[in-house]
Amino acid sequence: MRVMGVDPGTIKMGVGVVESISGDLVCREQICIAPRKNDPIELRLIHLLDNLKVIIDKANPDEIAVEEPFVSQNARTAIAIGQAQAVVFIAAAMRQIPIYRYAPMEIKKSVTDYGGSSKEQVKSMVSILLGNIDIDGPTDISDALAIAICHHNATTFHNMEIE
Amino acid sequence: MRVMGVDPGTIKMGVGVVESISGDLVCREQICIAPRKNDPIELRLIHLLDNLKVIIDKANPDEIAVEEPFVSQNARTAIAIGQAQAVVFIAAAMRQIPIYRYAPMEIKKSVTDYGGSSKEQVKSMVSILLGNIDIDGPTDISDALAIAICHHNATTFHNMEIE
Repeated sequence: MRVMGVDPGTIKMGVGVVESISGDLVCREQICIAPRKNDPIELRLIHLLDNLKVIIDKANPDEIAVEEPFVSQNARTAIAIGQAQAVVFIAAAMRQIPIYRYAPMEIKKSVTDYGGSSKEQVKSMVSILLGNIDIDGPTDISDALAIAICHHNATTFHNMEIE
Repeated sequence: MRVMGVDPGTIKMGVGVVESISGDLVCREQICIAPRKNDPIELRLIHLLDNLKVIIDKANPDEIAVEEPFVSQNARTAIAIGQAQAVVFIAAAMRQIPIYRYAPMEIKKSVTDYGGSSKEQVKSMVSILLGNIDIDGPTDISDALAIAICHHNATTFHNMEIE
């Protein structure tokens, strides 16, 4: 199964595609979509959507997993999160790919065994779990890969339970 | 000039198109897009986006005006607002139509002269301002028409200033 993890943001959107092959997790894609910072929000959103569709068409994921934050942020941040989420949801619906949501703590716990890990700790563990790969670029990318790994783990655990 | 006003929501999205003809404001379209309530968010968003594009293509607005709420809501509501806004922004960017934002109080003040008006008061004044038209359906529609009227008023005022 090939899973696309997405860390949604309107400034930077991390995308990581992870495939499970005979129990091993392999990184198929790691990228950060970054619209021009000074562009108005509508141009940034369409830039994110167009690029996300290109990556989906190239990577052909079976499922998409996305971080759904706790709603403890201030309302202005929450509106931006909603806008970025909408881009991912719309791209998934356009390509008819099922979408799954995970809380930040759940994702961190899945890759580091501790829900309060730092982004750097998540990055290190993601690299190890994917066969000591190099992760270039911002932590949005390692976060996206962590979301994909989290979904793989959740799916595997679920399949074990129902066997 | 033809303006499409949009009152963004993920459950109901009001859309109203208002044209100015020799100083008179005329309603060209009034509609509420309502996805199935129990559908997951990704299906609701794509339903809203697809229908919004159809209305844009039919009504051919020159500009789109949208309500941008104060960020005093709780974060969960704010995320939903962000998701609904993203749909409008993406539709506008896809059709390359300029988008303008107005605060709720600014919109109410523009149609009723009072920023604290109720939705029913807004509905009554919108009907009068558009030539005593019937407004059927929820207040999302009258709110959307109010946003379009607000943008017409702001544009007229701005043009008077720079003459």
